Amino acid sequence: MSHTIRQKKKLIARVSRLKGQLEAVERALEAERPCGDILQLLASIRGALNGLTGEVLEDHLHEHVLHAADEKARAEAVEEISQVLRTYIR
Amino acid sequence: MSHTIRQKKKLIARVSRLKGQLEAVERALEAERPCGDILQLLASIRGALNGLTGEVLEDHLHEHVLHAADEKARAEAVEEISQVLRTYIR
Amino acid sequence: MSHTIRQKKKLIARVSRLKGQLEAVERALEAERPCGDILQLLASIRGALNGLTGEVLEDHLHEHVLHAADEKARAEAVEEISQVLRTYIR
Amino acid sequence: MSHTIRQKKKLIARVSRLKGQLEAVERALEAERPCGDILQLLASIRGALNGLTGEVLEDHLHEHVLHAADEKARAEAVEEISQVLRTYIR
Repeated sequence: MSHTIRQKKKLIARVSRLKGQLEAVERALEAERPCGDILQLLASIRGALNGLTGEVLEDHLHEHVLHAADEKARAEAVEEISQVLRTYIR
Repeated sequence: MSHTIRQKKKLIARVSRLKGQLEAVERALEAERPCGDILQLLASIRGALNGLTGEVLEDHLHEHVLHAADEKARAEAVEEISQVLRTYIR
Repeated sequence: MSHTIRQKKKLIARVSRLKGQLEAVERALEAERPCGDILQLLASIRGALNGLTGEVLEDHLHEHVLHAADEKARAEAVEEISQVLRTYIR
Repeated sequence: MSHTIRQKKKLIARVSRLKGQLEAVERALEAERPCGDILQLLASIRGALNGLTGEVLEDHLHEHVLHAADEKARAEAVEEISQVLRTYIR
């Protein structure tokens, strides 16, 4: 992940927000809030997690596939993408 | 979420593990670990989040749909399930 | 699937449209159209398939869970739903 | 989609099988088979569709990203992949 400092900070901020969203689920479970509320919190976490994953994938496509150091590095980066996609689209 | 104490503890423990997994992503980003590693961490978080969601959905189906207090409560619980499913299957 | 004739016709019409969309993919592959076009056709088929699945699931929830003949039938219908959800949310 | 004839035939064969699976859904709806059966048929179609999509994506990554004619073509192919991924991971 040899990305710019700017991207790194932005991604870490998204992970922090996700942790905050999980803490809201913890509190909702402790307070025995209705299932429907908890399911909605979980659905919004899923959305945020997918948004983060999409961003890392796009960074990866641009940094390591498009601007690869050489053809060998590019082939490895494409292989990594393929493996990840297989877990999402199956 | 009027579930048993046992279920509640189990679900909270799963949320804690998810937070731990997110902290591993934070550390991986800080350490500028390879994109492929980060994508794999994110994919495993997705799996764990979906597992937790599936568990809450099943609890909901059993507690609030199957063993609903009355027909009105059952109809509301079915409506909640429908709304959640629409965000997952679209 | 003891649903009304009206629902049955509507669902069969959706399946026919899906077949038409697959035939468009066939023609696009035969004509060696750009990958990007084919991926977009496939993404729209996925959307249509998920829409159809969501409709069958909702029918199922209403006919066989909410308006079940008896508690045994309701428990079976809930079990069927749980199994299907596990294949979508994993 | 300037792929080999071999790949093209293989992909078209997969689309044909998908059409066959949709026809099974049509027959199941006509015969008013249980909802659970129809949901299982739909889940297997989803699996087959995702398998086909994964294959087209991998072909695309190899043909148009890895072995792109030039940097401009590669950038366009990466852009197409990004757009498609955003519809799957959201």
